[in-house]
Formats: sequence, C-alpha cells, structure tokens
Amino acid sequence: MTKQSCLVVGAGDATGGAIAKRFAREGFETCIVRRARHIDQLNGLAEEIRSAGGSAHAFGADARDEEEIVNLFARIEKDIAPLGVVVFNIGGNVNFPIQEMTSRVYRKVWEMSCFAGFLTGREAAKVMIPRGKGTILFTGATASIRGGAGYSAFAGAKHGLRALAQSLARELGPQGIHVAHVIIDGAIDTQFVKERFPERYKLREQDGLLQPDDIAENYWNLHAQNRTAWTHEMDLRPWMEKMA
Amino acid sequence: MTKQSCLVVGAGDATGGAIAKRFAREGFETCIVRRARHIDQLNGLAEEIRSAGGSAHAFGADARDEEEIVNLFARIEKDIAPLGVVVFNIGGNVNFPIQEMTSRVYRKVWEMSCFAGFLTGREAAKVMIPRGKGTILFTGATASIRGGAGYSAFAGAKHGLRALAQSLARELGPQGIHVAHVIIDGAIDTQFVKERFPERYKLREQDGLLQPDDIAENYWNLHAQNRTAWTHEMDLRPWMEKMA
Amino acid sequence: MTKQSCLVVGAGDATGGAIAKRFAREGFETCIVRRARHIDQLNGLAEEIRSAGGSAHAFGADARDEEEIVNLFARIEKDIAPLGVVVFNIGGNVNFPIQEMTSRVYRKVWEMSCFAGFLTGREAAKVMIPRGKGTILFTGATASIRGGAGYSAFAGAKHGLRALAQSLARELGPQGIHVAHVIIDGAIDTQFVKERFPERYKLREQDGLLQPDDIAENYWNLHAQNRTAWTHEMDLRPWMEKMA
Amino acid sequence: MTKQSCLVVGAGDATGGAIAKRFAREGFETCIVRRARHIDQLNGLAEEIRSAGGSAHAFGADARDEEEIVNLFARIEKDIAPLGVVVFNIGGNVNFPIQEMTSRVYRKVWEMSCFAGFLTGREAAKVMIPRGKGTILFTGATASIRGGAGYSAFAGAKHGLRALAQSLARELGPQGIHVAHVIIDGAIDTQFVKERFPERYKLREQDGLLQPDDIAENYWNLHAQNRTAWTHEMDLRPWMEKMA
Repeated sequence: MTKQSCLVVGAGDATGGAIAKRFAREGFETCIVRRARHIDQLNGLAEEIRSAGGSAHAFGADARDEEEIVNLFARIEKDIAPLGVVVFNIGGNVNFPIQEMTSRVYRKVWEMSCFAGFLTGREAAKVMIPRGKGTILFTGATASIRGGAGYSAFAGAKHGLRALAQSLARELGPQGIHVAHVIIDGAIDTQFVKERFPERYKLREQDGLLQPDDIAENYWNLHAQNRTAWTHEMDLRPWMEKMA
Repeated sequence: MTKQSCLVVGAGDATGGAIAKRFAREGFETCIVRRARHIDQLNGLAEEIRSAGGSAHAFGADARDEEEIVNLFARIEKDIAPLGVVVFNIGGNVNFPIQEMTSRVYRKVWEMSCFAGFLTGREAAKVMIPRGKGTILFTGATASIRGGAGYSAFAGAKHGLRALAQSLARELGPQGIHVAHVIIDGAIDTQFVKERFPERYKLREQDGLLQPDDIAENYWNLHAQNRTAWTHEMDLRPWMEKMA
Repeated sequence: MTKQSCLVVGAGDATGGAIAKRFAREGFETCIVRRARHIDQLNGLAEEIRSAGGSAHAFGADARDEEEIVNLFARIEKDIAPLGVVVFNIGGNVNFPIQEMTSRVYRKVWEMSCFAGFLTGREAAKVMIPRGKGTILFTGATASIRGGAGYSAFAGAKHGLRALAQSLARELGPQGIHVAHVIIDGAIDTQFVKERFPERYKLREQDGLLQPDDIAENYWNLHAQNRTAWTHEMDLRPWMEKMA
Repeated sequence: MTKQSCLVVGAGDATGGAIAKRFAREGFETCIVRRARHIDQLNGLAEEIRSAGGSAHAFGADARDEEEIVNLFARIEKDIAPLGVVVFNIGGNVNFPIQEMTSRVYRKVWEMSCFAGFLTGREAAKVMIPRGKGTILFTGATASIRGGAGYSAFAGAKHGLRALAQSLARELGPQGIHVAHVIIDGAIDTQFVKERFPERYKLREQDGLLQPDDIAENYWNLHAQNRTAWTHEMDLRPWMEKMA
C-alpha cells in the first residue's frame, strides 16, 4: 500500500488510543490529536505505537478551533501522507437538570462533541473528494439516538453529530467516500469508570464493559469493507448491557 | 380562566403568526417575539390580533442572546401574566455542499435553530416547574429526523432541538409540564415559497401546501390534551406530500 | 353532513368503545364490531350510544376472517352509510420466554393484531379510493416501535401493523385518504388493569392511566385535520409515564 | 475449535450461499437449507463448499413448517455438531396495490419472511440457551425500517422479523447469545436482478450492486465480535446507493 495517514481526533481516551493502535498495526501513519495540555500523555501513546513497530505523530490541538484544525490537515497532507482515514472520537458527557444547565456548558458540549466534528468532517471531505476515496468515522453514543432527563446538552450535541454523519454519508457516499457512525451503547473500560463507578467496573470481569481494542476492531472492519457493501451505522454494547 | 400568557419565539413567519392568533383566540395574553429589526411587521401582527379581540404584546429580541431571553421571560411574568404556553418556532434552513459550509454559517444555524431553543426551553422550565404545569412546544422539520446532502448544518441543529425536546419531555413530564415536538414535513404556504418556488406554490390550489392556520390548530390541540394522554411527537404534512 | 358511517373494529375494550362514542357524538352512524360471543356487551355499548342520541349498529364478527370482514364492509356500505372513518383497534398482548412461545400463540397474535388490520385496511381502501377521501386509523402500542424480552409475538405483530399503516399512508395519502397510526405508550384505565395490576391502577387518581375518552378525543382530532396538515403518527401517554 | 455447525436457512440465493461458504471456510460444519424442490441446486452448493475443502450438509425443508424445522435442528445437533451459528436469510419481496393484495399473498409473505424466522430463532434459542453462547443472525431489508406504497405485505413481514430480532437480542443477550439484524439496503448482484432489472445490473461494473461475498464477510465479522462489543444492527449498501 502507498503510504497513507490515519487521523484520530480525540485520541486522548482509551478508545481513541486503541483505534490509533489498530490502524498503525495496518501500516497507517497514525496522527493522534488532543488538547495541547495533554501532549505528554499523547507522546506516551505515540511512543507505544512506535515501539510496537508502528508509525505515530502526536499533535496538540483544540479541535474546536477552526484554524488549528485546518492547519493540522494541511500539515499532515503536506508532511506525512495523504489521509486515508479520519476518525472523530471526542465526547463530552454531562448531566444537569435543565434549570442548572448554563449556556456556557450547553455551548461547550456542542463545540466539543458536534462543532469539532463538523470541522473535522469538512476538512476530511476537502482532501478526500478530489481523490474520490477515503473513510470518515464518527463515534456516537446512546445519546445519539435518545434524549434523557438532564441530557439536553449531550444528547443535543450527539444528535447533531449523527445528523452530520448521515448528511455527509448521503453527500459523500456517491463521491466514493465511506462515512460511518458507530453508536457506543454502554460503559467503556476506562480509568474514569474505574474511579467513578466502581460497582459498574466490577462487571469488567464478566466482559460487561466495552473493551477499547474490541471497539477498535470494528472501526477497522468498517474501513476494510468493500465499497459494494458499506455500513453507515452500527451499534456496539457489551453482551449483558440493556439495549438503548 | 385566570389570565395566562402564551409566548411565541419566532413569530415572524406565517406559522408563528398563526399560532399566536390561535392562542389569542382562546384568551391568552399573546407575547410575540422576533428580531428587533422586524418590529414593524411584528407590531402589524399584534395589531391584527388585537383588532380580532385578542390581546397581544410585541417584543423585539434576539433569541440567541441569553440576557435578552432571560429578561423577556422576567418581563412577561412580571408585567403581563404567568406563562402557560411557550412555543419555539425558529428555523434556519440552509443547504451547502460540505466544502462550502463555513463555520460561521454552521454555528449561526445552530444558534438560531437549537441554542435559542435551549434558552427558551430552559427559561420556560424555570417558571413552570414551581407551578407544576405548563406547555412547551417546539417546531421541528423533516431535517429533525433525517440528514441529507448539504444539510449538515440544518439537520444538525434540528436534530439537536429534537434531542432537547425529548430530554425535556423525559425530565419535565413527571413534573407536570407537557413538552411536545411537531415535525413539519412539507412546504408551508408562505411568501418565501411563493417567490422562490413558484412551481411548488401552484400546489396550493390543491391543498398541497401546509396552511399555517391548520398547523396552528394542531398546536392548540396539543396544549388542550388532558394530561392522561399527552403526545410528545407528531408529524404534519399535506395530503399529497411524500413522507420523509 | 351527508350521512356517513364510522366503523370501529375492536370495539370491545374501553378504548374502542370511547372512540365509537366520540364519533357517534359527531353524527356518524357508528358501526361497532367484536367477536360474536361478546355480542351482549356490544349491544350494551350500542344501547349506550343510542341513549345519548347517537346512532349505533353492533356486529359480531371475527376480524381475522376474510369473508366476515368483506361481508361486513359490504353490508355497512349497502345498508347503513358510506364509510368515512375506519378504526382498527385490536391488540393481543402476550409475553412468553422464547422457548415457551408456541407457534400457535405466535400466529394467533399476528392474526389478531396485524392480519386483521390488513383485512380492515384493505377493505377500507377499496371503498374509499373511488371516493378520493376517508380516514383510516390504526391503534399502535409501545411494542410498535421497540421489541422487548418476551415480546417477539406482540412486537412482531405491532411492528407489522405499523408497516401496514405507513405503507398505506404512502400509497393512499396522494389518493386523498388519511391514514394515521397512534402509539398508545402506557397503561389504559381498564377493568383488566384494575384487576391484574392493582398497584398500577392506583396511579389513576393522579391521572397516571390513559383515559379512553382522552384517547378518543385525539382520534377525532386526527379525522378533523384539514388535508393541508395531516398527521401520520403520534404517541399518547400519561404525563407521569416513562417514554418508550 | 471443537466442531461446530452453522445453519443457513434460506441458502438458496446468492447471499445465503456466500454466507455458507464464508463460515465453511472457518471450519464450520455448514448446514444449508432450502425448499426440497430445489435440492439439486442446494447439492451443487454443498459440492462447491466441499471441493473448496469445507464441510457441507444440504437439507430440503420448508422453513414455514414447524415440524420440519424442529426435526432439522434435532438432526443437526444429534448427527453433525452443536450449532454455533444460525442464520435466517429468507425474504419474499412482493409489491401490489392494496386493493390487489390477496390475503393469501399477505399471509404467505409473512410466513416466509417472519414466521419462519420465528421458528428458526426459537429453535436456535432452545439449543443455545443451555450452552450460554451462540450467534443468531437475521437478514433484513430496506423494508425492515420503512413501509412503502405497495409494500404492506413485505414491509409488514420484515418489520415483524426486526421486532423478533430485537426482542431476542434483549432476551438472549444477557444469556450470552449474540443476536444481530443486518439491513440490506440495496440491490444484490443476483441472477434475478440481471434478468429483471438489466439497467440496474449495469451498475455492477461500478460496484453499484451488493456483492454476496462482501455481505458474507460482514456476517462473519458479526459472529467474530468479542462479547464486550456486540453489534445488534448494521446496514449494508453499495457506495452509490441512496440511503433508505
């Protein structure tokens, strides 16, 4: 394969990291992005990928900032390799009673989980359209398909991201670009769940938490689909999880 | 009935106007809002309501501006009458290929069609929760339930608004507040359609365009539902329109 | 209004009875149908309608039997009045673990809740198409939009009925016939709930059970919609009920 | 791997055949079923599998016949190998205006596309529940998620099958059994399409028809998912196909 890059926007969590490793394993120049203040951890992930024989490039950037995202795409395309795969994997789950939801929080959740996805998706489209190929993958959540008490901000942003994914799929599919949306419908095995939901974390022993590597395997499978049979949307949950 | 007010945010179009008239006819103190620069037309609508024996109050305000919306609610509650019904009726349909969708447009469409709905819904909740009753109605569109080529911004905002409506319904229903979402799935009989889509406008003769008064009748029926049988979502389209 | 008849297939329960009374109140020749073995109760309902000044005709028929349904439509059209409204209101809720679900039960639930709806909808279409108008209403349930453990039969039948309603709406809407589907998403105030779910029944005092008359009001509103703004689907639930 | 069998009910079409071959390639004892009158073609498929080094067993059976299905499962479990995977892949697409839809056709489509799926799913559950594992896959279609003019029978049956799949997933997931539903949203490269829709068939050259082998790959991937990340539903369509 000609050298190609795979960009993971939101590589700060376990899922983004696993996705990056999965594509690195297939020979992609993996470009991983998260906020600049976390660049140390990101460098750790890049290190890990490289020591496993992969190729990784860490970038500190704020995905909500148009200029930073535009520059990021330009730099990857110019200095690293044409983008074959772009993954948007930022979420920002919050829950507040409506009376306590500030406009600042409502807007910030949207900027992180939806607007940043728009910037990422648009820049991906711009480089992929002229080539007539490429894969754009968005990470969704239960909140992508249903609202819930206290979830006006998170569900709003995730519904908006799903609308983006679906609109792009309808627009870019016939131009050769595969756009897919993965609904993660359950708790992932992360440090966050371990610390904050210890009871839930015990389910890990019974495979009751989503494993990042298993999630990543499905992102790879989506990219690997032949274009005669593309998936636009699929859900993922642990076997014991109640379906949304 | 004790004096109650009905606020229509986005009373600038034919639909908002018809809804305001419908509730005025039932004795509500009707409070109509649109951008200050259109205050003349808004005063015309208020005039029309008053000359039909109703009560109307016109307000110029930018629904995306938190302070203006907060003040608006305070003023209505203080000077006019407790809000029994709040309708959010702003839309901002645009269509651009993804490469040409600017972040400014993407953000603006969201601010008008979704963020303003959040501010309106939240302020409505704040005054209604202590009273344990009230009705909040949101106007949706075909784009609320499906994305489409070129519709990343509009569908994103409308999906977000639907998530808001559903989240509020789940949160506020058990507190006695009726939250509903109406999916307008077709072209409305407006000046805009007349001028821009003359071919489509000809369908008007065969009842092929949604009539604002008929839409408004359904908003009234939603408010009038007894609380043993509340609707959260319903669609409206002309008889000859293809279903979304 | 020229004399018109309104047929309610499945008038045996509280909902069907309330719908029949509601349309009788508007001057319809109300034709009520349920299994022949319950003809006494059905005659009681007819009596009740007549003593309230309405017009009612009771028919014992098995809605799963094609010949009986075909004859019923022929007789109403010939002897009573042209059918302006046809309501299909039969449900057959059962819950069994899959291993215990017999093919007899699975098939019977489908015949009652779906196949009978097909026969009713088809015969309604046959008489309404030449007239270019009419209203066909189907009663759905939570199971119309989601499956659940033990609900393979009931959800299967109700999903099938919803597909029928949607297919007919797409086919018959442009022919002037209004087809709508009402999702009843909660427990109705019935003798059955009173006896079998006494705890739940206590919610009645707080308006926590769907009142048949309130359901019926919405069926009437659907029929009364002008054809510039038709609803195909709406949900109904008590204010305190968790949304499906 | 201990010897396991994979049953494909509806192995008569290109898709079923490709699925059988895919699982045979992984070492499954492949059991393929279609109507007895087509046993010659089925034997051809078995031959093909065996000559590629796989293991295949052809059965002529009517999937709508409870006794035949019950016996089939018993025989496979007793004589061949425990069932690890069961695929239900029968469809019966028809389109008739509602006035011309006979009850015989309506019922037959349901028996083939839904009732046979119930029998298959139930028998699969019976053998898998005690073992606490297994995979059950159902083939859906565009009609699984939307009705259409003339599609009351096919959409009804496919909606019913989807409700079955969802009900089984909710019931059997927590018992260790993976139930998934694949929505095939496009035309498949088959002899039928070649002969009946020659214009459409030309799209094949541009990858515009679903390739059975590519579909089968996804069925395999579903089975191969670790149980920390199971998919219940995914869609498949060619890159150029309009999304349902």
